[in-house]
Amino acid sequence: MQRASALGPLGILGGGQLGRMTAEAASRLGVDVVVAERFQRSPAARIAAHEVVFPGATWDDDDAIERFADLAPVVTLENEFVDAGVLRKIEARGSRVWPGPTSVGTVQDKLRQKHALAQAGLPVPPFRRVEEPGDLLHLAGELGWPLMLKARRDGYDGSGNVLVANDAGSVEACRKLGWPERTLYVERQVRFLRELAVIVVRGRDGQSVVYPVVETRQDPLLHVCRMVLAPAPVDPVIAREAARVAKAAIEAMDGVGAWGVELFLLEDGSLSVNELAPRPHNSGHYSIEGCVTSQFENHVRAVLGLPLGEPTLVAPAVGMVNLLGQGAPCVSTGGLERALRIPGAHVHLYGKHESRPGRKMGHVTATGQSLEDAMDRAQRAANALPI
Amino acid sequence: MQRASALGPLGILGGGQLGRMTAEAASRLGVDVVVAERFQRSPAARIAAHEVVFPGATWDDDDAIERFADLAPVVTLENEFVDAGVLRKIEARGSRVWPGPTSVGTVQDKLRQKHALAQAGLPVPPFRRVEEPGDLLHLAGELGWPLMLKARRDGYDGSGNVLVANDAGSVEACRKLGWPERTLYVERQVRFLRELAVIVVRGRDGQSVVYPVVETRQDPLLHVCRMVLAPAPVDPVIAREAARVAKAAIEAMDGVGAWGVELFLLEDGSLSVNELAPRPHNSGHYSIEGCVTSQFENHVRAVLGLPLGEPTLVAPAVGMVNLLGQGAPCVSTGGLERALRIPGAHVHLYGKHESRPGRKMGHVTATGQSLEDAMDRAQRAANALPI
Repeated sequence: MQRASALGPLGILGGGQLGRMTAEAASRLGVDVVVAERFQRSPAARIAAHEVVFPGATWDDDDAIERFADLAPVVTLENEFVDAGVLRKIEARGSRVWPGPTSVGTVQDKLRQKHALAQAGLPVPPFRRVEEPGDLLHLAGELGWPLMLKARRDGYDGSGNVLVANDAGSVEACRKLGWPERTLYVERQVRFLRELAVIVVRGRDGQSVVYPVVETRQDPLLHVCRMVLAPAPVDPVIAREAARVAKAAIEAMDGVGAWGVELFLLEDGSLSVNELAPRPHNSGHYSIEGCVTSQFENHVRAVLGLPLGEPTLVAPAVGMVNLLGQGAPCVSTGGLERALRIPGAHVHLYGKHESRPGRKMGHVTATGQSLEDAMDRAQRAANALPI
Repeated sequence: MQRASALGPLGILGGGQLGRMTAEAASRLGVDVVVAERFQRSPAARIAAHEVVFPGATWDDDDAIERFADLAPVVTLENEFVDAGVLRKIEARGSRVWPGPTSVGTVQDKLRQKHALAQAGLPVPPFRRVEEPGDLLHLAGELGWPLMLKARRDGYDGSGNVLVANDAGSVEACRKLGWPERTLYVERQVRFLRELAVIVVRGRDGQSVVYPVVETRQDPLLHVCRMVLAPAPVDPVIAREAARVAKAAIEAMDGVGAWGVELFLLEDGSLSVNELAPRPHNSGHYSIEGCVTSQFENHVRAVLGLPLGEPTLVAPAVGMVNLLGQGAPCVSTGGLERALRIPGAHVHLYGKHESRPGRKMGHVTATGQSLEDAMDRAQRAANALPI
């Protein structure tokens, strides 16, 4: 039998919605997908040609790594918490991993990430290593109270951060973040006007495409992205600078594939890099309907060594609203019907079996002639579909 | 464990590219898919949560039907050659099949299809039942030579049709189409200026959406669709009439889901229905990037009983060019690279393992400000990717 594709199968480490949307993009290009996850029948595995289940809660299982590497000559990740050591073991089995283990290792440690960004001359808040709670008093002398205390590894969506108001709270804050098992660092607290984000996709050849700069708005209680406005309603000069910083940040990491760059827009109009994610990012979901080429298709192209597609918007404005879990027993058919009746609302559901408060269960995108129009329709569809 | 979707799994009879693109649309809505096919690892099955393999070459296998119906409360088809009797057996197992067995049974027999269209007052060429070759001489007295002789069942893409020039060719033509095992009918040969097509998606509630009228151009040797121009470059009066006829045709069939309606535009400016397909249709692939809601998403919505989305174009013009097999051993990476470099060319590959001459291996879609621009880019990308 002849093989009609020279590409793939493509391995994806992680079976959540990012893997599922990556697999949808791979399908369009005729590329088979292998999904690795620590449980069976994950959202991405249910649309993949092959599934490798890692036993227990660990990614560091030699048998599963061998099976995965045997199936997938090229591997990427949707879960940046897979230790870089595991990525190296996959490469030792003969597969290529993109982004590479060194890039991922740098990003996984937020202190090393900040060092690398600062060394590249990119704007980051002042930061310092923390060895023990007693360090905070001294560091506050340099950076000022309150301090933003962060775990160096495995934080996401606002977990892994604690704002420490004064020295009396130091021990409790460090323990809350898992010290002394987990290592910590502090940043000067940043006062920002808006949060911006940029998707950069960089090919194996070092060429990159930069998506439009967007504004992200977080849920104030859940500390989870609630909505995305594309393009960000900011001065074009600021947007250009955000795009420049984002591209340079991914180059500083020698990143490959789609990366999310989160930025703060400060009160003086300057920018500060908050965090990088070495994978497709929630702030880029709008690109599926909103851009000529989605972040997911460009991610697949990049890791397979194919040329990248245009990241430009297909409409003047695009709005995206996350469907955050409210613990509903299932997707209500009536709610889905109401959401689908909103003109031009593109409803995405991730096929997760269980809704938990704040969990990302899906999202809605709408394109429009103005941000007000696009956001209004995306928001109305999201409101119609409690989940 | 709670279930986050009340919908699905959705069963799809047939595992080719139409099933695969339907499964991609289902994935976005969080709906699991079960693909039934007569061989393992079909293009659609490789992105489906479940696969049911029918043994041998038959769809009429009670065990497989039972397994399929047990998995899928709602079933649709991408292969209209599955006998309506099999669809009835699936319904007898408690699943709903959309479009319904009665609609599919009427369409499967092209003579009954033509009768139903004529009874609904829709324009079709004059046609007559053929019992044996000797009938043709008499029928030519009414309809004129040459006659278009057609098999009543199982023809597609130009197979199943023979043009008979005179009575001397009658026996050979009938035998070529499988007579006396297969039954036949004749139509008056239609002289047309253009071939048009319309996708109509009709919900379980009888509401339907009508996609823009497109022009299809066939490969003159292969008798396979080579390209689609959306919207068709015809007078708006003709396009309106084509849309009206197409909608009425699907209503006459009591169709549900996406249907393709092929029409001839005659020299006098009138229209004639050529054939109906009770499934998503090649002439609607442009809708994935070219319309607010693709034919595949609306097909999924329709068969699941959800409201339909807008079928309107997102750009002034959309071009689609099929990638017809040339027997290449595999997709050339160099060819794919060249195709992906064409700005705005959306390359779809179907993941078929073997390329055969004329086989539909993929397609390319491009949107543009004019048909010339869109078709040029789609054609250049297709030319770059021999397959």
